[in-house]
Amino acid sequence: MVKKLIKRKITLAIAESCTGGYVSNMITNVSGASNIFDRGIVCYSNLSKVELLNVDPISIEKYGAVSESIAQQLAFNIRILSNTNIGISTTGIAGPTGGTPEKPVGLVYIGFSSENETLVTKHQLSAERIIFKEKVFEIIISYLEKLVK
Amino acid sequence: MVKKLIKRKITLAIAESCTGGYVSNMITNVSGASNIFDRGIVCYSNLSKVELLNVDPISIEKYGAVSESIAQQLAFNIRILSNTNIGISTTGIAGPTGGTPEKPVGLVYIGFSSENETLVTKHQLSAERIIFKEKVFEIIISYLEKLVK
Repeated sequence: MVKKLIKRKITLAIAESCTGGYVSNMITNVSGASNIFDRGIVCYSNLSKVELLNVDPISIEKYGAVSESIAQQLAFNIRILSNTNIGISTTGIAGPTGGTPEKPVGLVYIGFSSENETLVTKHQLSAERIIFKEKVFEIIISYLEKLVK
Repeated sequence: MVKKLIKRKITLAIAESCTGGYVSNMITNVSGASNIFDRGIVCYSNLSKVELLNVDPISIEKYGAVSESIAQQLAFNIRILSNTNIGISTTGIAGPTGGTPEKPVGLVYIGFSSENETLVTKHQLSAERIIFKEKVFEIIISYLEKLVK
């Protein structure tokens, strides 16, 4: 997939929260990734989301950091700030702690932003912390496969 | 090591170039990392180093992105910008392409910044891309072990 992006010169930037660098790492494992991967931001704290990605702090207060609104803002803003073709975001609860009845462990919102659209998908994954990251990455790769045929 | 940082409430932020998210990912694999890991920036492009980490573009032109000066600026600036106890940086040539006689594949500068000091160590690692990342991470962990006894 990454090789296809390199070949087609489609640039990419990522704002990842719950995946904590996993997505950026997987992409940069591919030699030549530096031609299309501009930057990744692991925005773990709420403050880093606001400072680095211009997320509206009122949205965080209103909807929580793990929400459709924040995923949308992260994906759109990383694309615009990085001037790339595609922006991707992740925000979720990797666990094992941090879950609530409303937002249980395994909940994740993934944002995808391109020139044509910004969309957010919601998933409830049942997996422990490290497998959780892998599953989120698989969803991102599936999206990219559809987008870049 | 990460558990020790959590226990001692020592906060951390990372600016990684050649490791491409690997260091952030390894740290956030540990449950509870969100208590001490504020942010990671995968500053792959030169522009992202300037825009996100206030690296002096003249230094990049003068010394190259893979240099002691840039590692120093990245480690110091990520610590100050994130208001954390420790700032770490990596900049190197993961290969297999991108090497030159002066800066061969496997060259890496690692920056460590704390309130007391900012230091940069230079290493010539012989390893392919993915093992290269692992080796850099091991050096970082060794440093942290010494720093946080």
